[in-house]
Amino acid sequence: MYSVEVKNRIMIAHTLPREVFGKAQGLHGATYGVSVSFFAEKLDENGLVVDMGRAMEVLDSVLEPINYQNLDDLPQFQGLVTTTEYMCGYIFQRVCDAVYLHKLARGPEELDRIRVTLTESDVASASFEAPLTASEVHNE
Amino acid sequence: MYSVEVKNRIMIAHTLPREVFGKAQGLHGATYGVSVSFFAEKLDENGLVVDMGRAMEVLDSVLEPINYQNLDDLPQFQGLVTTTEYMCGYIFQRVCDAVYLHKLARGPEELDRIRVTLTESDVASASFEAPLTASEVHNE
Amino acid sequence: MYSVEVKNRIMIAHTLPREVFGKAQGLHGATYGVSVSFFAEKLDENGLVVDMGRAMEVLDSVLEPINYQNLDDLPQFQGLVTTTEYMCGYIFQRVCDAVYLHKLARGPEELDRIRVTLTESDVASASFEAPLTASEVHNE
Amino acid sequence: MYSVEVKNRIMIAHTLPREVFGKAQGLHGATYGVSVSFFAEKLDENGLVVDMGRAMEVLDSVLEPINYQNLDDLPQFQGLVTTTEYMCGYIFQRVCDAVYLHKLARGPEELDRIRVTLTESDVASASFEAPLTASEVHNE
Amino acid sequence: MYSVEVKNRIMIAHTLPREVFGKAQGLHGATYGVSVSFFAEKLDENGLVVDMGRAMEVLDSVLEPINYQNLDDLPQFQGLVTTTEYMCGYIFQRVCDAVYLHKLARGPEELDRIRVTLTESDVASASFEAPLTASEVHNE
Amino acid sequence: MYSVEVKNRIMIAHTLPREVFGKAQGLHGATYGVSVSFFAEKLDENGLVVDMGRAMEVLDSVLEPINYQNLDDLPQFQGLVTTTEYMCGYIFQRVCDAVYLHKLARGPEELDRIRVTLTESDVASASFEAPLTASEVHNE
Repeated sequence: MYSVEVKNRIMIAHTLPREVFGKAQGLHGATYGVSVSFFAEKLDENGLVVDMGRAMEVLDSVLEPINYQNLDDLPQFQGLVTTTEYMCGYIFQRVCDAVYLHKLARGPEELDRIRVTLTESDVASASFEAPLTASEVHNE
Repeated sequence: MYSVEVKNRIMIAHTLPREVFGKAQGLHGATYGVSVSFFAEKLDENGLVVDMGRAMEVLDSVLEPINYQNLDDLPQFQGLVTTTEYMCGYIFQRVCDAVYLHKLARGPEELDRIRVTLTESDVASASFEAPLTASEVHNE
Repeated sequence: MYSVEVKNRIMIAHTLPREVFGKAQGLHGATYGVSVSFFAEKLDENGLVVDMGRAMEVLDSVLEPINYQNLDDLPQFQGLVTTTEYMCGYIFQRVCDAVYLHKLARGPEELDRIRVTLTESDVASASFEAPLTASEVHNE
Repeated sequence: MYSVEVKNRIMIAHTLPREVFGKAQGLHGATYGVSVSFFAEKLDENGLVVDMGRAMEVLDSVLEPINYQNLDDLPQFQGLVTTTEYMCGYIFQRVCDAVYLHKLARGPEELDRIRVTLTESDVASASFEAPLTASEVHNE
Repeated sequence: MYSVEVKNRIMIAHTLPREVFGKAQGLHGATYGVSVSFFAEKLDENGLVVDMGRAMEVLDSVLEPINYQNLDDLPQFQGLVTTTEYMCGYIFQRVCDAVYLHKLARGPEELDRIRVTLTESDVASASFEAPLTASEVHNE
Repeated sequence: MYSVEVKNRIMIAHTLPREVFGKAQGLHGATYGVSVSFFAEKLDENGLVVDMGRAMEVLDSVLEPINYQNLDDLPQFQGLVTTTEYMCGYIFQRVCDAVYLHKLARGPEELDRIRVTLTESDVASASFEAPLTASEVHNE
């Protein structure tokens, strides 16, 4: 299995409003280093899993709407707890959507799975890894 | 599959008393960067794989008895070769034990597997990854 | 010149309410990796610049009141722009204060200077480095 | 599953002569950080996946012929596009060959799989991971 | 003294045509991680050494003409040995030029010095650090 | 001022037999990442501060006698407390000696200073930086 990984970063504010989070229940923030890995059994005719340049553009476009935001203010996160794990899954789905919308040269059927890793500090990170799944909007 | 990873470190002395280890047969030491990853198919009701704060406490409690020690002097390692690989498996079992003792909010049946990685230098590391297993003491 | 450096981290929210900051004018946040270096011409009788364990305790105590906070809500930052550079200077002064209060084995006259570095992401950091200075409160 | 990982690096020039590569079609170069992971279900009698020292020697010998080279000039890459992904697979096969030639204490039947990761920059990497496969030359 | 540091990267090919360079005399290449630090005694009215966003734009514009190039083909490097050290000095001067051309909000008289660091691998780097100097073209 | 930095690593055991060291008074160990920086005002005729390849050989030769050792057993450290800071100074002097013995192409009069940094973990390091000094043995 081949893979490529590209990396970017966002800076966000949020609360984690559940008792389990202790001091992190209050408004605080994070720099998330965001890595996305694309996996494929075979390389394409150019010797690529996916074009890294286009993969970086996809990652940029996924992160742009949430970068420098208070996640508590964004409609898509209302009523949700935006843990690092949850955000991995959220970004995973946005990247999948971009693949289904053919933002990469290779279609979803050519990719085995995607992994998103968010590094919240030098001692803590989270990830979500799964086969690609289409959001309902793309299944219509 | 979701995962979270937390990190800590220990500084230990030991010998590796087999011919294959060359100069490392003598008494020397290592700083081990210790990363533990917990994997789960589903997040809990708080949006967590496991609570990172409690995961760090578990890791602290597992490492405390071996930190700043000469592994050759500890009863649990008598007659054993404490390679980096072996220590990954050792720490893996201690972390599993803590999960079976309900030191984390989630029980062992909710976790898919655990991976322990020990980084002994910038150019060498080892890991052990497996589904959770209970030590005999917890099966009684 | 000898030096030792210890590292910790904080997660904060804040705004940067000046036009120059563009999207960062809104409420967002950051993980700051925080490194503090202590410089001394001579080692003490134990072969130390400062005891790293105590230096880490000092750093913990300096960071604890601002960790997991919205800096905009804290009295000490009212009317100020809490840029990464500014925060380096702020932490520098709190660490100096701790030295003047003899929280380290060595007094301020034995140290040449202190440097504080805040890493806000993998591609951006700031630092402040200067000889130790006593806050007014310690000059009374 | 146990694993060990060793790391080295090479500096190469090459072209990527396909339209998809944009500016990278021209002659340019890369420092590749090269990590090789060996996976095994069981440790050997010395507590090892493979001897890290010998694994580093194997990696050195695999990288030596391509280090400080223009890949376009090497016979083995004629007509090929030496993407980072492709080079992961190439190095994977050379490492497998070394295992089949008994350059490590453990034979290929004792290893589960091998992963090669090439880091081309702080924001981009690729990998290839698979069970060991023998080149034809070793099957004769 | 305050400082801020921003980071980017380039991938280049070159030869080092002197006997001292051994294998590196031939055509090979490098990924250079490029960090630029700006130093100032005082923060400006916005609490900044320099605006990091604009500093990153300056660094981008300085690196763009040499990224994905064979340095041997570029007119500015004819007859020169493009060692990592030399390239640090070259990029330093281009960044200084940008400051003199008022590409940053602060002018050269407000900055104490600039440091450029090129990391050519995980085990080797070089830097150049000096007060700002104007190229002749800006002195006319 | 130009500089180049090269990096290697050692794994050692030792005690720190003073009360201030708490648990570290006992026999334990460390992996030290060892970075050596050489500073020069001017590049030589090959565009170098010092040849990185030779600098790495010098660092190898300095580290070889202490790598995989119990520092408590070595004659040069009898009666001394081998703190990270002390070891920086020790390695500094050995590197200086190598320069005075003309192990590098450039002599000591062409170098401004040397800095040695030992990283004992991801959160702690020490360094020693000074102009080159000749050991007595080289002054004879």
